[in-house]
Amino acid sequence: MTKILVIHGPNLQLLGRREPSIYGRATLPQINRELTRLARKLKVALTFLQSNHEGELVEAIGRSGKVYRGILINPAAYTHTSVAIRDALEAVGLPVVEVHLSNIYAREAFRHTSVIAPVARGQISGFGTESYTLGLTALVGLLKKSR
Amino acid sequence: MTKILVIHGPNLQLLGRREPSIYGRATLPQINRELTRLARKLKVALTFLQSNHEGELVEAIGRSGKVYRGILINPAAYTHTSVAIRDALEAVGLPVVEVHLSNIYAREAFRHTSVIAPVARGQISGFGTESYTLGLTALVGLLKKSR
Amino acid sequence: MTKILVIHGPNLQLLGRREPSIYGRATLPQINRELTRLARKLKVALTFLQSNHEGELVEAIGRSGKVYRGILINPAAYTHTSVAIRDALEAVGLPVVEVHLSNIYAREAFRHTSVIAPVARGQISGFGTESYTLGLTALVGLLKKSR
Amino acid sequence: MTKILVIHGPNLQLLGRREPSIYGRATLPQINRELTRLARKLKVALTFLQSNHEGELVEAIGRSGKVYRGILINPAAYTHTSVAIRDALEAVGLPVVEVHLSNIYAREAFRHTSVIAPVARGQISGFGTESYTLGLTALVGLLKKSR
Amino acid sequence: MTKILVIHGPNLQLLGRREPSIYGRATLPQINRELTRLARKLKVALTFLQSNHEGELVEAIGRSGKVYRGILINPAAYTHTSVAIRDALEAVGLPVVEVHLSNIYAREAFRHTSVIAPVARGQISGFGTESYTLGLTALVGLLKKSR
Amino acid sequence: MTKILVIHGPNLQLLGRREPSIYGRATLPQINRELTRLARKLKVALTFLQSNHEGELVEAIGRSGKVYRGILINPAAYTHTSVAIRDALEAVGLPVVEVHLSNIYAREAFRHTSVIAPVARGQISGFGTESYTLGLTALVGLLKKSR
Amino acid sequence: MTKILVIHGPNLQLLGRREPSIYGRATLPQINRELTRLARKLKVALTFLQSNHEGELVEAIGRSGKVYRGILINPAAYTHTSVAIRDALEAVGLPVVEVHLSNIYAREAFRHTSVIAPVARGQISGFGTESYTLGLTALVGLLKKSR
Amino acid sequence: MTKILVIHGPNLQLLGRREPSIYGRATLPQINRELTRLARKLKVALTFLQSNHEGELVEAIGRSGKVYRGILINPAAYTHTSVAIRDALEAVGLPVVEVHLSNIYAREAFRHTSVIAPVARGQISGFGTESYTLGLTALVGLLKKSR
Amino acid sequence: MTKILVIHGPNLQLLGRREPSIYGRATLPQINRELTRLARKLKVALTFLQSNHEGELVEAIGRSGKVYRGILINPAAYTHTSVAIRDALEAVGLPVVEVHLSNIYAREAFRHTSVIAPVARGQISGFGTESYTLGLTALVGLLKKSR
Amino acid sequence: MTKILVIHGPNLQLLGRREPSIYGRATLPQINRELTRLARKLKVALTFLQSNHEGELVEAIGRSGKVYRGILINPAAYTHTSVAIRDALEAVGLPVVEVHLSNIYAREAFRHTSVIAPVARGQISGFGTESYTLGLTALVGLLKKSR
Amino acid sequence: MTKILVIHGPNLQLLGRREPSIYGRATLPQINRELTRLARKLKVALTFLQSNHEGELVEAIGRSGKVYRGILINPAAYTHTSVAIRDALEAVGLPVVEVHLSNIYAREAFRHTSVIAPVARGQISGFGTESYTLGLTALVGLLKKSR
Amino acid sequence: MTKILVIHGPNLQLLGRREPSIYGRATLPQINRELTRLARKLKVALTFLQSNHEGELVEAIGRSGKVYRGILINPAAYTHTSVAIRDALEAVGLPVVEVHLSNIYAREAFRHTSVIAPVARGQISGFGTESYTLGLTALVGLLKKSR
Repeated sequence: MTKILVIHGPNLQLLGRREPSIYGRATLPQINRELTRLARKLKVALTFLQSNHEGELVEAIGRSGKVYRGILINPAAYTHTSVAIRDALEAVGLPVVEVHLSNIYAREAFRHTSVIAPVARGQISGFGTESYTLGLTALVGLLKKSR
Repeated sequence: MTKILVIHGPNLQLLGRREPSIYGRATLPQINRELTRLARKLKVALTFLQSNHEGELVEAIGRSGKVYRGILINPAAYTHTSVAIRDALEAVGLPVVEVHLSNIYAREAFRHTSVIAPVARGQISGFGTESYTLGLTALVGLLKKSR
Repeated sequence: MTKILVIHGPNLQLLGRREPSIYGRATLPQINRELTRLARKLKVALTFLQSNHEGELVEAIGRSGKVYRGILINPAAYTHTSVAIRDALEAVGLPVVEVHLSNIYAREAFRHTSVIAPVARGQISGFGTESYTLGLTALVGLLKKSR
Repeated sequence: MTKILVIHGPNLQLLGRREPSIYGRATLPQINRELTRLARKLKVALTFLQSNHEGELVEAIGRSGKVYRGILINPAAYTHTSVAIRDALEAVGLPVVEVHLSNIYAREAFRHTSVIAPVARGQISGFGTESYTLGLTALVGLLKKSR
Repeated sequence: MTKILVIHGPNLQLLGRREPSIYGRATLPQINRELTRLARKLKVALTFLQSNHEGELVEAIGRSGKVYRGILINPAAYTHTSVAIRDALEAVGLPVVEVHLSNIYAREAFRHTSVIAPVARGQISGFGTESYTLGLTALVGLLKKSR
Repeated sequence: MTKILVIHGPNLQLLGRREPSIYGRATLPQINRELTRLARKLKVALTFLQSNHEGELVEAIGRSGKVYRGILINPAAYTHTSVAIRDALEAVGLPVVEVHLSNIYAREAFRHTSVIAPVARGQISGFGTESYTLGLTALVGLLKKSR
Repeated sequence: MTKILVIHGPNLQLLGRREPSIYGRATLPQINRELTRLARKLKVALTFLQSNHEGELVEAIGRSGKVYRGILINPAAYTHTSVAIRDALEAVGLPVVEVHLSNIYAREAFRHTSVIAPVARGQISGFGTESYTLGLTALVGLLKKSR
Repeated sequence: MTKILVIHGPNLQLLGRREPSIYGRATLPQINRELTRLARKLKVALTFLQSNHEGELVEAIGRSGKVYRGILINPAAYTHTSVAIRDALEAVGLPVVEVHLSNIYAREAFRHTSVIAPVARGQISGFGTESYTLGLTALVGLLKKSR
Repeated sequence: MTKILVIHGPNLQLLGRREPSIYGRATLPQINRELTRLARKLKVALTFLQSNHEGELVEAIGRSGKVYRGILINPAAYTHTSVAIRDALEAVGLPVVEVHLSNIYAREAFRHTSVIAPVARGQISGFGTESYTLGLTALVGLLKKSR
Repeated sequence: MTKILVIHGPNLQLLGRREPSIYGRATLPQINRELTRLARKLKVALTFLQSNHEGELVEAIGRSGKVYRGILINPAAYTHTSVAIRDALEAVGLPVVEVHLSNIYAREAFRHTSVIAPVARGQISGFGTESYTLGLTALVGLLKKSR
Repeated sequence: MTKILVIHGPNLQLLGRREPSIYGRATLPQINRELTRLARKLKVALTFLQSNHEGELVEAIGRSGKVYRGILINPAAYTHTSVAIRDALEAVGLPVVEVHLSNIYAREAFRHTSVIAPVARGQISGFGTESYTLGLTALVGLLKKSR
Repeated sequence: MTKILVIHGPNLQLLGRREPSIYGRATLPQINRELTRLARKLKVALTFLQSNHEGELVEAIGRSGKVYRGILINPAAYTHTSVAIRDALEAVGLPVVEVHLSNIYAREAFRHTSVIAPVARGQISGFGTESYTLGLTALVGLLKKSR
């Protein structure tokens, strides 16, 4: 069964409490449950990882190449600053879909630039929890095509 | 029944023939048929418009407020240059989802800036034809929530 | 009798409905009627043109040199993007007055630059409908001096 | 009777002698007389102040809140450099109309930016002496609306 | 017989009247006649299109791939702003020669950048009407080599 | 009793040894003792955290909302690079006071920008150890006012 | 007894009336009284100067070297524009503490740069009236150390 | 006898005491005496003005046109910030020589730009007191040629 | 007989061997022979100069004014860096045509700027050897018109 | 015996598998063995550290001052983003040699800037594994000179 | 007797013929004669060098340290581009005075930056031939002081 | 026997005398002797060239392709300005190693950019004379691998 790594970046453990007008009221466990339901339909298996540590994310991505077929990532704040995560994603060479809860292009200027985007296949931003489910759908779609 | 306006920007009439390595092999009628199939499932009605004329797009958007509940738009080249389309979208105030066939953030630097994004609810880029179907799904999701 | 061409740029057909907190509640026909009343006092004749098509505006300006003595223009979104309209205005060589309903210098940064301004005689912005009547007064004033 | 403060910024005492091809041949007393005539028609009272001292302008504006209903200002060179005048105008909170004799957008690049404009209601530039009379008309119009 | 599409961008219908010190005294029909004479010598057939509408130019270019062997284009004002025309030229993939009547590099700074140039084979600017005849010669030369 | 979290960013464990001409001779334990003395006077309780790990800082801030009433932070090098810490501070919504031992505005240009400052209530820089004691005083002052 | 010069820059005479949401409700005399109380405790004597005139501030600073031991300054709008005040402060060579009522780094971009900061020992911003009392405490602290 | 206005900008009253390693040990009266000696040789009469007030400098320059034949100015800090002084110099139209004690191009980046230079005939910087005597020599040379 | 100076800039002695995919397979002697043939038809005489030395090019241009009627130049790498060659061309005042073998606007960003272009009459780039023959044709055309 | 700390930054645990066309086929253990061999010849002892955690690197550097005589570091992605590592290196004050496997100046623009380089003695980039051996040779050379 | 090297940069051999409205009518030999006359008065000996070759200038400066006591240089076009000349001047360490015939700050933007100025003692620009004589006077003044 | 061209750029003939704190005390002949000793060990033959003339360097590189197997270059000041040397290196296509005596990334900002680096295989900077010996070792290593 196709395995997909789902990565939640820094501060996402706070979801539901953190500025709900921007990030919505769903918590991370709720998002993960919703993704699991969808995964069952799409016949893929998900592993979840939330970390606030750039290094942990880098290592998890580095190890992912042998186990997973694709990565769904919300890099959160590291979207704008982490060349290390970008390099890790480029190194493992798996298809990557980048998602954002909020529309990063309608926020502060420093959030308009993603250092991750050039190494991702595609990006989805602005749909709250649904950014994740759309992203998983998109990723599974990419995997089917490349088979 | 909820009506949605689907807008295809300049040069998209060439799809299928135009640089297939970037834009894929699907033609515009094929994309529209696929969207129609999905619309039936989602129980929404679609109207399609392709235009290479910024003015036509501006006018169609300007008239859309009374008829449609949302707009799905691939602004193509006008993504990067048309303040007039942005103003039109802002003026009618409908929920807007912006889609791109290619990952615009992995291409030339001038394609990294969307003047449309700040007035859209969300953006999906990089998944070829599937950017459209994901975008329609996302838009219908937004409409349900706001009801 | 001195003839003046009054040009309304893109999206101005929506006036009255479009974000009234920024653009006011007057509709375009109301503005035109008010300008017509003023024109009678100032003993000039007005022709009105609203277009969302850059090309139509370019052509109308290009033909205006033989018929009109001056141009009153609200270039709206094309203020910031249309070198073609600028070139047309420069080419016909008539005195031009540029008007804006809102104070463009108190809005988003991309609205602070007018590519039209360097080829206009003067600019009036921020007074709502009155920007037009002040602009017409100013234009007629310029025409009198140059006689 | 509505009282309006008319402020002339630095070097404007030289009007009529200073580069007449740019600034016209009218002197400051002539402009003030013309404004007085117009004020009588508009049934408002004017107080005139010309100063080359940023500090004097700041203080006059700071005191104006209790006496005046609006400010008509040609900030001249301080348009481009004086955050202090901007802060004073913002602090007193009166409606402000900014005027310029010449079209500042058709001159040197450093004249294209006004630090005053974002705190003014509107701006009029390029019509010589008439910039002032149009500006006074506009300001009285604003005051009427806000009553 | 080899067919070539000759495109004249916005405001070029005004040639001969428009600022002759910059653009010369030849009218567009005169330029077209001169190009026709040259085409006869070079044994190619020309089709002429002048349009002020970005959308019309985009569409003409989009249709050209099946009929023409090359494009000679003076994009005029759209040189500096039209990503849509650039995308159309790139999409059809015909050899393109870009010409300018005036030396755009000796004029205002915003005219120094051509968004068209990177998708053209070559560029000729500054020789008035002769820019066109040199451009046609160059284009026919390119076509011969690639045969 | 009001609890306050005191955060020392990367490399501050080296204080006293690290470039004393810039950072002074006091060690971190000495600073903490001095803060504890002051806290007693101000009748608040302090918890200290020094970490070189962005992720640890992010997590500590993320957990702080339920326990603490305010945060005193010297983000050190992360001042200039950590959007993740900024997001964490914004997410918990506690009053934040940012302090720096050295005057960051009198050092290298890259130290002039703080990504933390826009989410802090205030900033104190340049007074060595005293930046901390002034910062604690300021934070307690803010907490009193908001009660 | 150690004498300290306290300088209030332009528009600060308006404090209490001017945008209280940003600058607080305390008036300048109230701030000065609070500073006087604190000075008594710290056993220093204060002289107060408020001026809207850059030149007056420059001169007062220029004369201060023989009389005062330190300068506490809120340069207000001149923070961002006055090289002359910076040069005066550098010339007299007294220790300088720069204070701001509001957090200048959380406001408009042009307020993020202080031309004064590089010649000050330290900076305190964002604590309202308390910025002054913290600043005086800091300055007296610096003077004690340098004795 | 040819009269020349010698203007010393802000902080120059401090000369001799102010950072002598940069500005030298000569006081302003000494510089003026040396200039007077040289003026006698060159058979011109000098009037000296030192002011820290931008407005005073603007006014003195504004009045100078009728009395003086040329201006020797060390604008000091106003070199980099005063559009008002620039406008005044341009308005009176006298030949202007700009001098600086220090080499402004070997100091901080913000001192590399002179807003005065474009309206001066020439500039001399870096020679301490001798910058003034060379400047006076140069100005008298210019006046002779233009006679 | 009209004499024209043909200048080949640095590295052009390597033509034919140097990156033929960019610069083509023709050698410099072949280009010169082709230009000589064309010159005979156009009834002008050519002198050729290739130099890798900026100074030699500057001197040759400096001496050219008395002997030649025009200059055809491929400045190669000096296109982007040599103010000295620009000044020499401007000084002699002959009509200059600038040519490039490759389309410099489709290459690295630093090749998009020509310091030579503003002092040339026109520019031709991207046609390989034919850039030279078109350039010579253009230059002779310019000389005929100016007679 | 002289002890040297060898630091490998993020993602370098992937060497050999990660994009071998850029980074080569050697694995990290192979590189370390080769460095150990060289160290024996140079009579120095090496300690190796690979970490993907900025904080771990900061701490290891912070502790290194008492044990090691120099640092050989390949900061990998942190080269471009980590002010914390820079500050740690500056704080301990050991001689530092920075190495890169690939030529960072021939890659994406964001890789052209090293925040580490200004605190290193020297930098070696582009020679694959040999960058390390050259770097160790260079570092030992520096240590010999400074003895 | 004190020996001074006088260096004339590229294109200055053309003086008198080259754009006399900018550079004046004096030829280089005339300037040299005038400098020689002045040198006699100042009791210094001059050696003149004009070269269009950056390398020759670099070498002459490199050799000058043993023979000359100072350098008077008009770097002409190399002012803006030659790091090599700057390095040579810095290397020999002689006092350098930089002169320009025209006011480089009143010309094209690219002429506003001198890479030479930071290594010169002072700069004189805008006085035509007199820039040289003032420069020699200044240089001899500097040499006297440093004795 | 493998032949290598060693190029020393402008001002390097001054080594040993020129700012020894930056460039060290070794002279160019000493460096060449040291390189010769190393070359003997590495069994390669060296040819040395020092030139201050950009053109000479361009020509030597242009001729090198037939004789040499690699180039070791210290471009000195031309590192930052010479597109011509870059083009020559790219044209001959030999492996190039760029060396610098000082750490150019720890010096003035304009020295941080090398126009040569993108066409070199690798770069070594900051180790004084040893930069050359390391560079030669690296170059010979590259040649061995590519055999």
